[in-house]
Amino acid sequence: MDLKGLKFSKMHGIGNDFPIIDESKGVVIPEEDKPEACRFLCHRNFGVGGDGVLFVVPSDVADIGYRMFNPDGSEAEMCGNGIRCFADFVYRKGILKEEKMTVETKSGIKTIEITLEDGEPALFRVDMGTSTFKVDEIPMTADVDEFSDGKLDVLDTSFNVTAVSVGNPHAIIFVDDIEAVDIEKYGPAIECHEVFPEKINVHFVQAVSKTEAVMKTWERGAGVTLACGTGATSTAIAGVKLGVFDTENILLHLPGGYLKFNVYEKDGKLGACMEGPAKLVYDGEIQRGYY
Amino acid sequence: MDLKGLKFSKMHGIGNDFPIIDESKGVVIPEEDKPEACRFLCHRNFGVGGDGVLFVVPSDVADIGYRMFNPDGSEAEMCGNGIRCFADFVYRKGILKEEKMTVETKSGIKTIEITLEDGEPALFRVDMGTSTFKVDEIPMTADVDEFSDGKLDVLDTSFNVTAVSVGNPHAIIFVDDIEAVDIEKYGPAIECHEVFPEKINVHFVQAVSKTEAVMKTWERGAGVTLACGTGATSTAIAGVKLGVFDTENILLHLPGGYLKFNVYEKDGKLGACMEGPAKLVYDGEIQRGYY
Repeated sequence: MDLKGLKFSKMHGIGNDFPIIDESKGVVIPEEDKPEACRFLCHRNFGVGGDGVLFVVPSDVADIGYRMFNPDGSEAEMCGNGIRCFADFVYRKGILKEEKMTVETKSGIKTIEITLEDGEPALFRVDMGTSTFKVDEIPMTADVDEFSDGKLDVLDTSFNVTAVSVGNPHAIIFVDDIEAVDIEKYGPAIECHEVFPEKINVHFVQAVSKTEAVMKTWERGAGVTLACGTGATSTAIAGVKLGVFDTENILLHLPGGYLKFNVYEKDGKLGACMEGPAKLVYDGEIQRGYY
Repeated sequence: MDLKGLKFSKMHGIGNDFPIIDESKGVVIPEEDKPEACRFLCHRNFGVGGDGVLFVVPSDVADIGYRMFNPDGSEAEMCGNGIRCFADFVYRKGILKEEKMTVETKSGIKTIEITLEDGEPALFRVDMGTSTFKVDEIPMTADVDEFSDGKLDVLDTSFNVTAVSVGNPHAIIFVDDIEAVDIEKYGPAIECHEVFPEKINVHFVQAVSKTEAVMKTWERGAGVTLACGTGATSTAIAGVKLGVFDTENILLHLPGGYLKFNVYEKDGKLGACMEGPAKLVYDGEIQRGYY
């Protein structure tokens, strides 16, 4: 496999970073080569580096199609930070110069609204869908229907945990002082706690008002990360359910930047719209196809 | 500071990776902006990502000049993997189309010899200079003049350590079975051992013949890394001193690739010439200057 001449751009959404490749006019990397190519592109020393590779593809059912591959070469579901990067790229490169676009993803069709500043895309708004608090859907083993603000013993202490899933599972823990939490100690202990058979993403959150909070994330299988879009979404939703947050304009500060949420109810479930930035850092062209 | 439009290439030498910028025809990033620019360029999520930034600059005393900045924005000394990348870039981009070039660095003038394969630069040979085994020059606190194959107690065990400096300090530890060494446990314990007042880089080495070995590195301040050029140089030199290696064609396998060494004696000191590959992975152009 030789990627020589491959054109890509490198983007990030509050620190979640992605090489992105335009296949809207046709396939650039053959399907059978995509896993190996994405492993190479995501490698931070030998390749380009990234938390995943995004592809712009044609769609029969939406304005444009979105695909994402993980660093291990498997195809990924929709990613909140990734889809903002996707929209920024699609708009800036003139693939689709629309401030409102429908995007086909593996998680269904998403509508993205772009806010321009000085004629340039600045903020991207996307409906992240609805959530579930049912323990068997998280999954979590507990003698309750929902585990909301429930006490969970962890190592030498206990935390009040709310378990929620927006497609992937999250443990939301509101604390008084986020700086006092030893995330390197308790993050992995909660991630691998016996009550979470498929492990879980862990978020410590300190609310500073009814519409603003600071959060830190221990991501399942990844450790401390700069940003987790579905984790922030789950945090907004859990905060509304617990009465910590109002439903509109919830501003969450993650280590890599901020995201804003509106929480809504649909079919008896809580869902959220996310708004945040994306940056096209550089354009590139591969010279050496593989290492 | 706006880096928009900045052209760079991304290179790696057996996994040690560097953005590189051509300032041979004139300054591209003003001197006062270089520290901040290099912090941005080295950031793996927000910028380009790298173990340092290389600059090609003019020289009055050599064919061409080499500068390197660390990810923290400080200026670095010469780096064995970096200078091979430098030579590959200079040759490929036609800045200097010579198979033998003298390069001005902060560590003096280095001569680099390029081996072509099918007309393209493939291997790069550079004299890494001489070494010292004197404990006060490492520095190491010990009641001996040199600490060669000496027993050092570490946590619950002991290792036979050879302390050597080639400008920076290295602890070389020959072992029978490199897979049996718990580098995450003993690496930091040796790095921060009380006998090394300025800490030390730690290398576990398993010789498979008089001219070949496999090594793993725990780098001072960085942990496990794919490649350490000065560490491999120190390993070759220590191996010759201990009689483990012959002096010619010593092939060392690092996690990121291989390097080959010839060890020589000069003014009563052991020195080494290193030969290895470099790869120009991609060319890039910055679109968003800062995050």
